[in-house]
Amino acid sequence: MNDIRIFGVRGMPEVAAGDDLPGLIAQALHKMGERLHDGDVVAVTSKIVSKAEGRIVREQDVVPSDFAVALAQHSNKSAAEIEVILRESARPVKMIDRVMIMETKHGFICANAGVDRSNVAGEGAMLMLPEDPDRSAEHIRLALEERFGVSLAVVITDTFGRPWRVGQTNVAIGVSGMAPILDYKGRKDNHDRTLQATAIAVADELAGAAELVMNKTDRIPVAVIRGYPYVRAPGKAGELIRPKHLDLFQ
Amino acid sequence: MNDIRIFGVRGMPEVAAGDDLPGLIAQALHKMGERLHDGDVVAVTSKIVSKAEGRIVREQDVVPSDFAVALAQHSNKSAAEIEVILRESARPVKMIDRVMIMETKHGFICANAGVDRSNVAGEGAMLMLPEDPDRSAEHIRLALEERFGVSLAVVITDTFGRPWRVGQTNVAIGVSGMAPILDYKGRKDNHDRTLQATAIAVADELAGAAELVMNKTDRIPVAVIRGYPYVRAPGKAGELIRPKHLDLFQ
Repeated sequence: MNDIRIFGVRGMPEVAAGDDLPGLIAQALHKMGERLHDGDVVAVTSKIVSKAEGRIVREQDVVPSDFAVALAQHSNKSAAEIEVILRESARPVKMIDRVMIMETKHGFICANAGVDRSNVAGEGAMLMLPEDPDRSAEHIRLALEERFGVSLAVVITDTFGRPWRVGQTNVAIGVSGMAPILDYKGRKDNHDRTLQATAIAVADELAGAAELVMNKTDRIPVAVIRGYPYVRAPGKAGELIRPKHLDLFQ
Repeated sequence: MNDIRIFGVRGMPEVAAGDDLPGLIAQALHKMGERLHDGDVVAVTSKIVSKAEGRIVREQDVVPSDFAVALAQHSNKSAAEIEVILRESARPVKMIDRVMIMETKHGFICANAGVDRSNVAGEGAMLMLPEDPDRSAEHIRLALEERFGVSLAVVITDTFGRPWRVGQTNVAIGVSGMAPILDYKGRKDNHDRTLQATAIAVADELAGAAELVMNKTDRIPVAVIRGYPYVRAPGKAGELIRPKHLDLFQ
């Protein structure tokens, strides 16, 4: 099987805290005349997951620490925003001028620990990453599987920058129902020579593929990838985080 | 338009130096009963581009420098292989034990400067990256456009590792006919707030999406991505290389 279809789920409403995300996704699919098929991968932007889970804080409700206030003097960010970033962080990876590359409490390395102000309603509103994106992915997967009577994989996505290369790409920060990495180790190439250790981060490639039909300005926060033969497994996004002792660039 | 189809081009023969790659792709498509449509993105693995361009060297034909011989004593690579890696490199980025993360002469940062032994026929054969992947992409694009009478984009892909995250992903090392980066800077989000500077490396996401239908063990070195509304422009893969003075991780 090497024919894949990717389509965006149109007509999703603005998501608010407490909303039933799987229900909203199912309704939007229904309005499109679509339904989920067995083996579909459903990619969901972390943004609407965070909104549904109420992972939002308002600037005016944050009391910044003295450290945050001090950092704000050399930043284009407010002390409150920096305070929230610090609360979401396990440690700083690089802090230079206005850039804050942080390791989040999940272990992801990204700008501002994933704290985001764009596409959030309300003055001074800031969105934080889901507390446990794998759990969020599993919740969505189980609900959609029950509703459609099929077996699925779910990937929670966010756009991260990367060293060396310009531009951000969509990556997987939450995974459920599939192995996030496809390991070719030991397999033979087509000259019967054993392949060099090659492990493909397919969950990140699926997240990137989904981004191609999502749109930051329209309202397409969910995509369906149909026809990709993922490996069914109790996968976790943590498998995509390189252990520090194996990371040459920290 | 947010419905994309990705399919692998099956039945490609083993590619040899001097082969007419666009011709082989067209023949394989024809055998599949497929043809290229206006606006298709054709993703081609650098491996078959290198083979067609004769970017191959045999261990026994390489005279390693004393430096390569010295390095080989602390490596699982042969002195000849290290010699070829050094010749392909502009500079080392990290060399620790058996790992050689190099900046290639094109400016890409990857393991072994892209020198690869897997899926190469012949004892001691090593494949180097195309000399000018953008030129290779343009050559393929113009030939396929003429043959099918359509306008296309072509992306030459390779699988690179990345810091922080486990596993490799497919990225674009050659681009023709499209803007590799989609810049949302200045656009409004759906709360009419100007988006934070967001530039998506869509060429890398297209390369990653293509990898999902390619297969390292079968022979699917070409994929077609249909329905993605790329921005037509004289794009270059160099736009995806972060200038050193803007790179916090070198």
